Amino acid sequence: MLGLMQDRPLALPHVFHRAEEYFGHKSIVTADATGESRVTVAEWAQRVRRLATVLDTLDVSADGRVGTFAWNTGRHLELYLAAPCTGRVLHTLNIRLFPEQLVYVANHAEDEVVFVDRSLLPLFWPLVDKLETVRHVIVIDDGAEAEIPSDPRVHDYEELLAAATPFEGRFEIADENTAAAMCYTSGTTGNPKGVVYSHRSTVLHSLITLIADGAALSERDVVLPVVPMFHANAWGLPYGCLLAGTDLVLPGPNMTPQAIADLLERHRVTVTGGVPTIWMGMQPLLAQHDLSALRAILCGGSAVPKALSEAYREAIGVPMLHAWGMTETSPIATMCTLRTQHEPLTEAERADVRARQGQAVPLVDLRLVDPATGEPQPWDDVATGEIQAAGPWIAAEYYRGEGGRAQFTDDGWLRTGDVAAVDRYGFLRIVDRTKDLIKSGGEWIGSVDLENEIMSHPKVAEAAVIAIPHPKWVERPLACVVVKPGETLTAEEVIAHLEPRVAKWWLPDAVEFIDEVPKTSVGKFSKKTLREKFGGYQVAAPAAASTTDDGRT
Amino acid sequence: MLGLMQDRPLALPHVFHRAEEYFGHKSIVTADATGESRVTVAEWAQRVRRLATVLDTLDVSADGRVGTFAWNTGRHLELYLAAPCTGRVLHTLNIRLFPEQLVYVANHAEDEVVFVDRSLLPLFWPLVDKLETVRHVIVIDDGAEAEIPSDPRVHDYEELLAAATPFEGRFEIADENTAAAMCYTSGTTGNPKGVVYSHRSTVLHSLITLIADGAALSERDVVLPVVPMFHANAWGLPYGCLLAGTDLVLPGPNMTPQAIADLLERHRVTVTGGVPTIWMGMQPLLAQHDLSALRAILCGGSAVPKALSEAYREAIGVPMLHAWGMTETSPIATMCTLRTQHEPLTEAERADVRARQGQAVPLVDLRLVDPATGEPQPWDDVATGEIQAAGPWIAAEYYRGEGGRAQFTDDGWLRTGDVAAVDRYGFLRIVDRTKDLIKSGGEWIGSVDLENEIMSHPKVAEAAVIAIPHPKWVERPLACVVVKPGETLTAEEVIAHLEPRVAKWWLPDAVEFIDEVPKTSVGKFSKKTLREKFGGYQVAAPAAASTTDDGRT
Repeated sequence: MLGLMQDRPLALPHVFHRAEEYFGHKSIVTADATGESRVTVAEWAQRVRRLATVLDTLDVSADGRVGTFAWNTGRHLELYLAAPCTGRVLHTLNIRLFPEQLVYVANHAEDEVVFVDRSLLPLFWPLVDKLETVRHVIVIDDGAEAEIPSDPRVHDYEELLAAATPFEGRFEIADENTAAAMCYTSGTTGNPKGVVYSHRSTVLHSLITLIADGAALSERDVVLPVVPMFHANAWGLPYGCLLAGTDLVLPGPNMTPQAIADLLERHRVTVTGGVPTIWMGMQPLLAQHDLSALRAILCGGSAVPKALSEAYREAIGVPMLHAWGMTETSPIATMCTLRTQHEPLTEAERADVRARQGQAVPLVDLRLVDPATGEPQPWDDVATGEIQAAGPWIAAEYYRGEGGRAQFTDDGWLRTGDVAAVDRYGFLRIVDRTKDLIKSGGEWIGSVDLENEIMSHPKVAEAAVIAIPHPKWVERPLACVVVKPGETLTAEEVIAHLEPRVAKWWLPDAVEFIDEVPKTSVGKFSKKTLREKFGGYQVAAPAAASTTDDGRT
Repeated sequence: MLGLMQDRPLALPHVFHRAEEYFGHKSIVTADATGESRVTVAEWAQRVRRLATVLDTLDVSADGRVGTFAWNTGRHLELYLAAPCTGRVLHTLNIRLFPEQLVYVANHAEDEVVFVDRSLLPLFWPLVDKLETVRHVIVIDDGAEAEIPSDPRVHDYEELLAAATPFEGRFEIADENTAAAMCYTSGTTGNPKGVVYSHRSTVLHSLITLIADGAALSERDVVLPVVPMFHANAWGLPYGCLLAGTDLVLPGPNMTPQAIADLLERHRVTVTGGVPTIWMGMQPLLAQHDLSALRAILCGGSAVPKALSEAYREAIGVPMLHAWGMTETSPIATMCTLRTQHEPLTEAERADVRARQGQAVPLVDLRLVDPATGEPQPWDDVATGEIQAAGPWIAAEYYRGEGGRAQFTDDGWLRTGDVAAVDRYGFLRIVDRTKDLIKSGGEWIGSVDLENEIMSHPKVAEAAVIAIPHPKWVERPLACVVVKPGETLTAEEVIAHLEPRVAKWWLPDAVEFIDEVPKTSVGKFSKKTLREKFGGYQVAAPAAASTTDDGRT
């Protein structure tokens, strides 16, 4: 027996028309080289309607891929809606990809047009002749001085919009499983893999940004997504903001800590989100800014150091709101809002909870399994295993089967590659990537745990721990440490800091001081690069090495 | 091109397993004749697993209808999950239906079994031989003294559970459009009509109870649904609570204001919900109860009188949170949380906003049309029209086509039968039912507006306004007024109270004092009954009648 409810698709036209009808008076501010511009949502919606017909004028196929190579701006947000609401597929190109990767993904996705911020032309234009399917390059003039090539493929965004007739009536997407957007993961091995979001997955994921035990986006919020719109739909914030009717502040090309802090203060932003690196950079500026309107700082992309979160709590009263996910999970899979079971805890214990990745949000199912055997592991906060994920916004496969099925289980769950322990309330504590685990004498050492402990040292800016070969224990940890500017630190001090904090056999065999931790194109620690750099590492310091010979039993 | 996301159904097994896995430590309290009982969600979940196999033992068909005739209790909540999670369809029988309606709906739905609270047996058992498809009556012993018939069809709920083997593993519903539950509307004319909710509609609707600009259910909440679980799934609160992980307090059979107020205080309830009548009854008790934990009182089912909401705001700091919908809309269609545009308003103006039904929640689309021509009406807060609704939890048709297609437009929208004005922000102000509008001299008079104004008189308990025939103006309003106990009031005082508040030609031609406003089985004003009572009404008071002869131009 079937239900007798209306067959209404979960699709982005609802998000667009809701914003247009109910929130036309709200504002979208974009910062760029020339200052700030502000449009109302009503004005923005009219521009989306023009852009919809521009895509027809440019002869983009009915389900053609529309590339963007752009910062977080109101005009990027126009493309976020105009492309999927007309049946096209938004393909946000990651501006930090290496040139050969960019060429690969644009060709793999068969992008027909690419919308490029003028300030990013110098990165993009040199590749254009290698892009096999791109027929038009539309330049969004953000006031940068980059030269605009004289080329028949090049168009000016504002000129196209000015000449266009606005689309009238309501956008319609009949099948909610239609592709809405795609994003390539910058895998550490092999070619980037395309994740294809559907209208259904995008709308459901957007709803989750509104729930009370989460980001709780409300019409009263002013939201500044620092997380790039070219990365996993900026964690779903732009669509969530339109659904909730928030004001939006978009930072444009200037992503310096100073610029972000100024925007947060000037617009009395209530919710922001970005990777830990952003907030580390902004930390020295907290004292000089009035951030009293802020109520939530979403943080994810890599584990949030407890010390960072605590520094913010102490300085401005707002700790990090830890979220976890990946491109394949749209990306929000867990969030770490405190619960009633945390009420009896001390502030220090709560800080430990906030350093966790949190609990699965509604509609997401997680399981903890032994990565080798697939055996379920207990949720006792001790046993570790790989987190696997299922749900309506979790990837089922990669575009064109790229990379095969290795990332997916036989019963269709995503292997996240993250290793975690889970407490009895389902709160995750990610200890490592399956690829980054250190296996010492048959036992796992969590590199992320070690990194977090090292980063709690007041003189440490960043730290990454990798495995180095060892004749007896097979693998042992090497700590690569970045010291804060103006500070000095020795290997012995690092080890002494760790001794009361971790099991003795976890202590790194050596500490190397580096200038910075190499990052991937989305700002995550690139341990692959470190492993290459320290490939043939020989432990030099006998003092540290000696710690491996005891404490195991 | 299709998205490549996992094909995971939106289905109630997710809600069940989420509650079981993450919120096993939370509690479900039920009040009954013997006091209060408390189970943890983990214990409750084990009982749901037993109940699942009980349904097999009772030979309920794979998609058989499982009737319930029960109060709000933890055991009713077991049925809420066990029936749909095993593919059966929960049919909540309204205990306030007239006997012939009850017989009709149980036969129409083809209920195979009915679970009946012992305290309700005296209402139910006399009808049992007229129920053509019911094979088993399972008595849930709530400590009442009602005699349990000695009959082979009768079973004891606890005995069945004790004898059952718990279902193991995970419940699965492959098709999210499978029916989950059904509820009959007690229409004022014709036979009751069956609304059939799907798993998809139920899960989406539950999510909406979690959003910030709504009930914002959070794990930190303690929720007491006064609205009956036999009426439109208690506004989705039970499922929303399980999804969010709240504590639940269920009032059982004792629905007196005193009992509800005591429960609210004792359990430090944070969110409650019910029809205005409940809150009117509880109002005199506010001063004697510590309700400081309360943060939201959801109120709907009929328009929330501004005076009532203000009385609560003044007494306990929490006004009513107005919601609007109907059985056909699952039922939440709009909610009235205040927004940034209301910040500059005075407290009195905000009270006016709170008396509105509010804005469509995400995923619901509303339109305002002339009920006769279907022409769209402007959202200017002046023009009125019928509200029509579309969305994934809005009914597409009635069970077995009952009542035909009259309630649905050709393009598949629900005609709600409610007449409203809508402001530029999409905030509804319902002025009447299409059936209850008073057409005086070719112009509409909103009976609900008039009622609200009359009910703002401090001596008025309730008021209903109906149309009476008039030789010149075709129809004119008659006010039926219930005076508060111990107070006296004259017709002239009522008219004098209205004069500064409404247009002169809206003033009722007569005022009748009645003992109470007749109610339907779900507690709404039954104007049909009033119209029957005052069918041949002749205006007696020339003073009031004279007001119809001017003020129209």
